Amino acid sequence: VSITRVAIIGAGHIGASIARACALKLPDVRVALYDASEAVRARAREIALGEIAEAPQEAVRDADLVILCVPVGAMAAAYASVSAALKPGAILSDVGSVKGAVIAAIKPRDDVFFVPGHPLAGTEQSGPDAGLARLFENRWMIITPLADERLAYKQAAADLAAFWSALGANVDVMDPARHDVVLAVVSHLPHLIAYNIVAMAEDLEQVTESEVVKYSASGFRDFTRIAASDPIMWRDVFLNNKEAVLEMLGFFTEGLTALQRAIRLGDGAMLHETFARARRVRREIIEAGQDSAAINFGRDQKP
Amino acid sequence: VSITRVAIIGAGHIGASIARACALKLPDVRVALYDASEAVRARAREIALGEIAEAPQEAVRDADLVILCVPVGAMAAAYASVSAALKPGAILSDVGSVKGAVIAAIKPRDDVFFVPGHPLAGTEQSGPDAGLARLFENRWMIITPLADERLAYKQAAADLAAFWSALGANVDVMDPARHDVVLAVVSHLPHLIAYNIVAMAEDLEQVTESEVVKYSASGFRDFTRIAASDPIMWRDVFLNNKEAVLEMLGFFTEGLTALQRAIRLGDGAMLHETFARARRVRREIIEAGQDSAAINFGRDQKP
Repeated sequence: VSITRVAIIGAGHIGASIARACALKLPDVRVALYDASEAVRARAREIALGEIAEAPQEAVRDADLVILCVPVGAMAAAYASVSAALKPGAILSDVGSVKGAVIAAIKPRDDVFFVPGHPLAGTEQSGPDAGLARLFENRWMIITPLADERLAYKQAAADLAAFWSALGANVDVMDPARHDVVLAVVSHLPHLIAYNIVAMAEDLEQVTESEVVKYSASGFRDFTRIAASDPIMWRDVFLNNKEAVLEMLGFFTEGLTALQRAIRLGDGAMLHETFARARRVRREIIEAGQDSAAINFGRDQKP
Repeated sequence: VSITRVAIIGAGHIGASIARACALKLPDVRVALYDASEAVRARAREIALGEIAEAPQEAVRDADLVILCVPVGAMAAAYASVSAALKPGAILSDVGSVKGAVIAAIKPRDDVFFVPGHPLAGTEQSGPDAGLARLFENRWMIITPLADERLAYKQAAADLAAFWSALGANVDVMDPARHDVVLAVVSHLPHLIAYNIVAMAEDLEQVTESEVVKYSASGFRDFTRIAASDPIMWRDVFLNNKEAVLEMLGFFTEGLTALQRAIRLGDGAMLHETFARARRVRREIIEAGQDSAAINFGRDQKP
């Protein structure tokens, strides 16, 4: 990898994980971090995430690669805070879960190569302490290059891909609009649904929250993991991928309404047919190495 | 425990788990099983689940406790197949996920004590090979006794509770109608939603099923575990708990429509407020010992 100095703007779960992954897999790469929160900077220093800068400009000075690791709605401001200090020829990237809106929000200098990206990795945890050196191993990193025909731009995209490969990720290249539609299905809609059912359980009058908690192992708990994800990050995802999310939500609601009707009319054949199909998808996900084959995600293993 | 002979009708995931749990925790109890499927009986014999009877009447003869472990829609027929052969004074129970419909379907003999029950335990697996001796440990077993004031009935309910405690479960007593409402929230609705999103992903034209599988680690995969559950069992749950499920589905849809509207109108405050509340529920579930505190359910732990 020709990248020797990396700057990370935003020392949350993903930023901290990139720093940890670099320390493990690219020990010769120098990592500088900045976070807008003074408390986060102090904590990042305490747990030795890397060189912690007191100003964004300071973090990016001399960096070959600058990665914006902030919520999608904060990308434009994060870029503005470092733009003037970027080294000519630097690669600029990000980890936003939405690509179209980030590309629209960031208009980089001509002598900086902006290669947007999105690592499909993460957990329900947040903050600098949630940095995991192996978070990206065997996970997909999607790069959505701009329509920039310059040779140096192509080289920058290749360098970014090599960097993520070195961290253990499998790199895919995708069109930004396609990325936003695919992610609406595999990530954004599931999070919205999980948030909705968990929030709903709190509002019910017929069933108390403590009953929901007590009996949650019968299915409900599976939804609570992703519903524990960072609320600001997810607010920004939905505000910035509106069209694709609303379209997929439409499909989801149509399907749910058809199931509702089948329940009301007692149409067992329709219910059975729908339920039977879902089994196969689970098997395919396990075969693709994208989930554990262990029963119950392996979480209930007892001696 | 005063129960020394147990008969299990239905040698699927739950029936096989009861047999395994008895072998581990109540080695002096004799377990007989019957399953309507000849292939399941053959397999149950091969893996030594217990005494495998060739007829249901044969399995229940002399049993102190008979547990019907079949889908809710098959309970009436399962009961009819054993009724005449039950020992006077025997305890009859079941493991159905719906209690009102099972109670309505089974009108036992006067000299048999029917104590309905529902162990809130299970995995996405099915069949006799999925029997787990420790499945019920630290899980709830809900007993919904009938309005039977006979002293012998009360004793039968107490004996059933002691049996499940011996298998490691925590026993709760609940009104059947209340059980059906609570389970509609914590179990039936989550399964319906999971089945719906997984089936939807198969139907989409914009995004292929192989893309969904490939990128599923970004949220989608969490839904696929419970959507891999037995389709016949779940068809019967929805056909037999119609009222409570439709009511909870109404709440869910209202919440989702409100989120949809917030996304369309760009109401970030509403989204953030809803998302932030969900975090707390996750924490409570972990504190209640109902889920693993490990990141990502612990499934991604790498060396």
